[in-house]
Amino acid sequence: MTVVGLGLMGGSLAAALRRRDACRRVVGVTRRKSKVPLARRLGFVDEATTDLAEGLATADVVVLATPVTDIVAKLHALGRHLQPGALVTDVGSTKRAICEAMDGLPGHVQAVGGHPMCGKESSGLAVADPALYEGKRYVLCPTSRTTSEALALGRELVEGVGAKPMVLQPDQHDWAVAIASHLPYSMAVALVLAAEDLAGGESLPWELAASGFRDTSRVAASDVRMMLDILTTNRDQVLMALRAGEGALRRLRNLLEEGDLAALTDVLTAASERRKGIYP
Amino acid sequence: MTVVGLGLMGGSLAAALRRRDACRRVVGVTRRKSKVPLARRLGFVDEATTDLAEGLATADVVVLATPVTDIVAKLHALGRHLQPGALVTDVGSTKRAICEAMDGLPGHVQAVGGHPMCGKESSGLAVADPALYEGKRYVLCPTSRTTSEALALGRELVEGVGAKPMVLQPDQHDWAVAIASHLPYSMAVALVLAAEDLAGGESLPWELAASGFRDTSRVAASDVRMMLDILTTNRDQVLMALRAGEGALRRLRNLLEEGDLAALTDVLTAASERRKGIYP
Repeated sequence: MTVVGLGLMGGSLAAALRRRDACRRVVGVTRRKSKVPLARRLGFVDEATTDLAEGLATADVVVLATPVTDIVAKLHALGRHLQPGALVTDVGSTKRAICEAMDGLPGHVQAVGGHPMCGKESSGLAVADPALYEGKRYVLCPTSRTTSEALALGRELVEGVGAKPMVLQPDQHDWAVAIASHLPYSMAVALVLAAEDLAGGESLPWELAASGFRDTSRVAASDVRMMLDILTTNRDQVLMALRAGEGALRRLRNLLEEGDLAALTDVLTAASERRKGIYP
Repeated sequence: MTVVGLGLMGGSLAAALRRRDACRRVVGVTRRKSKVPLARRLGFVDEATTDLAEGLATADVVVLATPVTDIVAKLHALGRHLQPGALVTDVGSTKRAICEAMDGLPGHVQAVGGHPMCGKESSGLAVADPALYEGKRYVLCPTSRTTSEALALGRELVEGVGAKPMVLQPDQHDWAVAIASHLPYSMAVALVLAAEDLAGGESLPWELAASGFRDTSRVAASDVRMMLDILTTNRDQVLMALRAGEGALRRLRNLLEEGDLAALTDVLTAASERRKGIYP
């Protein structure tokens, strides 16, 4: 098993595979030399290398765990390094662009898209955690060339890291995560930017910020490169979600401006009940 | 010490006073009869009653812990029940309307506004917690009639529940909490409403919602009556904050629509750095 990219997601996946004895041997591929000894010292890999071709040469399964546009770029280049029958999968947060690129892999290679529904706002190997995937949903997206064997092997990988597989079409996935993940991220970013604007250099609002601000803004600290790739490779769905977010804020503002307390109560109640319904 | 309103904030305050031995005797006043034995059984009060006049009659210090508009209404009516020299304070989340009402209290009564910067998205006596105030900031707002003795007694109360006093003018406070608290609440509500709209009855987005959605939406589950009072008694500041939130979302959308990845990177980086700066 070769994991390409030893950040939070790749490092945690490698660590989980080893910790749970889910495969014979885990090889990590990383661009940064300093991560090679670190990954080994942490016990997250059997072996690590900065040489992609070397890491791919003997792999039965390859998991790409770099930002989405980098995964797409690698998918265009890595086919010739893979042995016949090798399975390529990934942990990228959007799936349409990646699954399209998987369709272009050479015929001797298997492929299935993947997206585990877990993460942290901090990134990097230092915060990787073998328990990150445990009990979490992990979406598998078949491409036009995904065989039932490839999908079965994908399921084994998901269960191997302790997660729960769920099969979705790439477009279905990208639509749902725009709502469940990319919109919350955008709202958190907008909150931090708006608060900074409003504070105008005064420290008082930050001194009074309690758990409400902390939690609502948490994901704004996410890795920028990763999030930029996500927004741009899911552009249309994210734009629609952003419009809905603006619309909902405008609706709140209009009701407050007009002093329509009955309608405002209804809207706040709907949101409160819905939130309690999702997380009882 | 009499605490009027035995919800999350009042119940936790009473419990903290008793647990920390901060005063001789804690009396709780509640509208609901069922809370009288419950508050006693939980050990949060020495005595509880549904009779406001009775609860006020012997109090040295009265803490009003009901929604903001109810605190204002009570401030217009309770003066005649209080003994000379009694101190009235509150834990309401906006301070201008309350401090104005405090100015109208009869001359034999002392007053200082209060707002502890803590809470939970769930409400009620059942989730009250004697440790809720520990280490938290607790704003005190002097009114035009607050004597230095009244302020000193207010500080004693704050320290008595384990919190850290901070003295602010009511307008200063209301401006800062619009940014630090009312805007995050509004963003969380808008997120839930927008997500519900976009999902259009499909369950998939909710099934894929992970910690990002959970945390960003958490405070949308706050008590509606309490939040409605907060938004309406801090209307102008909240409207300004909502406009800034809409503006920030629109800015993100415009950059993504135009495909201006350099500017989008700058904006996401600014938000990420700022969030990391606030919560290192």
